[in-house]
Amino acid sequence: MPSDLILYSYWRSSAAFRVRIALNLKGLRYETRAVHLVRDGGEQHAPAYAALNPQELVPTLVDGERVLTQSMAILEYLDETHPQPPLLPGDAAGRARVRALSQVVGCDIHPIGNLRVLQQIGTQFAADDAQKSAWMRHWVAGGLQAFETMLSRSQDTGRYCHGDAPGMADACLIPQVYNARRWKVPLDDYPTILRIDAACAALPAFHAAMPEQQPDAPAPAPQ
Amino acid sequence: MPSDLILYSYWRSSAAFRVRIALNLKGLRYETRAVHLVRDGGEQHAPAYAALNPQELVPTLVDGERVLTQSMAILEYLDETHPQPPLLPGDAAGRARVRALSQVVGCDIHPIGNLRVLQQIGTQFAADDAQKSAWMRHWVAGGLQAFETMLSRSQDTGRYCHGDAPGMADACLIPQVYNARRWKVPLDDYPTILRIDAACAALPAFHAAMPEQQPDAPAPAPQ
Repeated sequence: MPSDLILYSYWRSSAAFRVRIALNLKGLRYETRAVHLVRDGGEQHAPAYAALNPQELVPTLVDGERVLTQSMAILEYLDETHPQPPLLPGDAAGRARVRALSQVVGCDIHPIGNLRVLQQIGTQFAADDAQKSAWMRHWVAGGLQAFETMLSRSQDTGRYCHGDAPGMADACLIPQVYNARRWKVPLDDYPTILRIDAACAALPAFHAAMPEQQPDAPAPAPQ
Repeated sequence: MPSDLILYSYWRSSAAFRVRIALNLKGLRYETRAVHLVRDGGEQHAPAYAALNPQELVPTLVDGERVLTQSMAILEYLDETHPQPPLLPGDAAGRARVRALSQVVGCDIHPIGNLRVLQQIGTQFAADDAQKSAWMRHWVAGGLQAFETMLSRSQDTGRYCHGDAPGMADACLIPQVYNARRWKVPLDDYPTILRIDAACAALPAFHAAMPEQQPDAPAPAPQ
């Protein structure tokens, strides 16, 4: 297996953020290649990148000759090729729970509020910034409420989403919480999510994956 | 493992359709409990169903004491608990490819055109039927184009999405093709998808999972 991992990433992409967390949890070194999603009409649409990723989305992970797309599929791949520490529990019921939690975010929250969807409601419905914010808050709040319910009534929830070690569901949740804060979604109704977010924030693997820590993040505004 | 499987389903739901295909491919018997997504404001919002599925979405699969949500997580669960015939290939790279194809549909096409999203663009932007159709065609066409590209340039594509046996990616693709036809998305530009759709249609497992074959499908209009 070649050891040179290349991650095509954008600092503020939730999906790329998930993969950065997983790479860090596994202790894998990787090279970041930044794909700016807005500049020049979106570098993800450049022919060289579209040849790697026909969806013209980030992230893409290149592992030697293998070109991997779709963040949750990449997390599964990393867990299979680098099993320690595991991102998924050892039992089928536990894995089903962690995958379902991950997909609540990865299927039913994040894609509906993705940059390209916000651009489309702007183009098709002339949505202004306030309407885009309302759209985001609608989907993020509804999705996080379901996530909170799934966490709060399960005895499988521990220090993290599933037991006392961080895993795939945490790698999906934390970028969504970051995104919710960006869109000023109130989080007070989700105490379990906030508790897990704080636990993850204390881990170097999550901290190093934060958008502001990425090489392509803009420099902080001068004081 | 209890053998009584109960699928909470809606005849025209793409996500429930995926699970029906997988159950049929595995040769598993199950009981259908219909959840009507429109009648009475949506039976998925009834308290008894919301207690099973906090997202208030279909499908939910009940396997004895286990309550499983999120269709792609359910497909993985069925593949782990009933390994034959497999829905995923045996190698990590192949599994990554099949999961990525599945997620192109399950994350980036279907959720953006889900019933609840169409309802929201109606509520928030007063979208009429023509605008809802344009919205659907935009996301379905773009997504299927990427899917077609991923299929057509890979040597792993066979009679089905991955090799010569049907699997998870087919279980995700075929309901999306059905949905595309419903919304009158032109499919002529996707010859590989059309070829695989025809191959799947010839299989009893796919035919029996079709919306019109479900116990909750409306009766055909009288001649």
